[in-house]
Amino acid sequence: MKLASLKGPGRDGTLVVVDRALERAVRAGDAAPTLQSALERWDEAEPRLRALGEAVEGGRAAGTFDFAAALAAGRVAAPLPRAYEWLDGSAYLSPVERVRQARNDKVPESFYRDPLMYQGGAGAMMGPRDPIRALTEDWGIDLEGEVGAIVGDVAMGAAPEEAARAVRLVTLVNDVSFRRLIPAELAKGFGFVNGKGANALAPVAATPDELGRDWRDGRLHLALHCAVNGKRLGDPNAGVDATFSLPQLIAHAAKTRDLAAGTMIGTGTISNQDPATGYACLMEARLVEQVEQGAAKTPFLAFGDRVTLDMKDAGGQSVFGAIDHVVERYA
Amino acid sequence: MKLASLKGPGRDGTLVVVDRALERAVRAGDAAPTLQSALERWDEAEPRLRALGEAVEGGRAAGTFDFAAALAAGRVAAPLPRAYEWLDGSAYLSPVERVRQARNDKVPESFYRDPLMYQGGAGAMMGPRDPIRALTEDWGIDLEGEVGAIVGDVAMGAAPEEAARAVRLVTLVNDVSFRRLIPAELAKGFGFVNGKGANALAPVAATPDELGRDWRDGRLHLALHCAVNGKRLGDPNAGVDATFSLPQLIAHAAKTRDLAAGTMIGTGTISNQDPATGYACLMEARLVEQVEQGAAKTPFLAFGDRVTLDMKDAGGQSVFGAIDHVVERYA
Repeated sequence: MKLASLKGPGRDGTLVVVDRALERAVRAGDAAPTLQSALERWDEAEPRLRALGEAVEGGRAAGTFDFAAALAAGRVAAPLPRAYEWLDGSAYLSPVERVRQARNDKVPESFYRDPLMYQGGAGAMMGPRDPIRALTEDWGIDLEGEVGAIVGDVAMGAAPEEAARAVRLVTLVNDVSFRRLIPAELAKGFGFVNGKGANALAPVAATPDELGRDWRDGRLHLALHCAVNGKRLGDPNAGVDATFSLPQLIAHAAKTRDLAAGTMIGTGTISNQDPATGYACLMEARLVEQVEQGAAKTPFLAFGDRVTLDMKDAGGQSVFGAIDHVVERYA
Repeated sequence: MKLASLKGPGRDGTLVVVDRALERAVRAGDAAPTLQSALERWDEAEPRLRALGEAVEGGRAAGTFDFAAALAAGRVAAPLPRAYEWLDGSAYLSPVERVRQARNDKVPESFYRDPLMYQGGAGAMMGPRDPIRALTEDWGIDLEGEVGAIVGDVAMGAAPEEAARAVRLVTLVNDVSFRRLIPAELAKGFGFVNGKGANALAPVAATPDELGRDWRDGRLHLALHCAVNGKRLGDPNAGVDATFSLPQLIAHAAKTRDLAAGTMIGTGTISNQDPATGYACLMEARLVEQVEQGAAKTPFLAFGDRVTLDMKDAGGQSVFGAIDHVVERYA
């Protein structure tokens, strides 16, 4: 099942059920007016949403509309337009390993047991065509291509197996970062606030069963195609070199707290050890240039630049639709 | 105007308007079913809520109920039962100054210009009588008495003056911390996740005008009475030694992002330079014992311990009602 949200009338948007080809959709209506409301009573809402999904797929649903056209017109919000909690992990250690190797240093053993994680803002996420906005290019605007899981209620102390059962939906995240603000902010010791912008989500979020064999071991085994201004930046596979699975990251987040339905957990920027896969963020490209060529050459994003993130299945079908947006000066 | 929320039927609770004495209340009903909904359309909701408040105050409102009894029965939720963003500053530098002085060191000048701030979880805040829950006492359970501001929409880059106008409500926060988990977590460099528990809020939140002259310069000039098991821990004044005002902290949070209506910003643990005022958290008591007596003696909270936080005006009236709750083993 694939779910999306149209913008308005409220800040939580309007839940719609989308076909596999991302062409037609129908409003969920009585089944659940918003995704947040569906997540809060999933057992009741899910079968009704699935029935709607099958009707759309079979061309039997009444009141369908052209989802692709709505997306192109900028009327599609993030599937979950706002989340109460956004906890972003660091599943991929390749960049850390690469930097440490270059200086004949080792990655601390604890990095493989205890995930890095920060809590960020998700009170107003960008839709897949909404602009990335910043007051100045001087912030060092960067994309971060990730996979995100949206969960149901998770109890404090839940094991990864329990966390795995709580994964309701999977989607793509562009976790926008302001790189030049980060070193000074992290030096203060309290994590990111100013260093992170709003997230953008892909047009749809999919239930794990919809992903078939591509979703296994709590990882999504597909390449994320990342491009800036139409030029390939990389296509690392989210299932490769992921030290931590999404259920492990969810369990980490839940160690000392309940996670409420609608919490979103991210993998961190996808990165593979194979250098041929390229990058899902500009910072890693710059880091490698610094190490290998003595200076970073890839610029951060400028106003007018276009960022595209997309993930395709074996048949070439876009699984979640593309995040495809431009960088704009905030006004 | 004083606002509160009853628990249920949904996770956002039911908004009620409370009299100044915290005795009688009335459901806001059509004016706004929940506080979050009121914050999202404040210009429309505020006059209707104020009219209800005046009717309750004058004994003219229909359908009032005994708020004090509802509170005692555990039916009162946090005024805002869940917030999309919770950003907690560090307005009070006294503990840092004290520790540095003891080792003949100075507080870096930047600490007085650039506030420390972390983003925490607020997807399920505790009501004022709900238990603090932890899986084990070994986490080093601590209270942190703070003042919190709940804001309307704030634009990216807003100046403190603009942020001041966005303050809709003020309340008390117990920002529960798990002290023994914090050093290892902060050493990872990404801030707090496991080191912080859910927040508890006071029974009511008040509009700034309700606070009269006690709210000035973006600070609340009243003492926070903190007790553990009925024994005074301290009563530092939130208006004294606050290096940053709440509007300055809000502006810091908004530097690179819009803040959505319902965002909550905290002062950080209240602390005064005058040692006679005592403490609003156990950690500071332990720190001072460590410096002055060579070892920390005050224990962290144990299961069964009771924490009370309250703030009274010049007339002895509790402004927000007390946060008064016990520590329990999570089950």
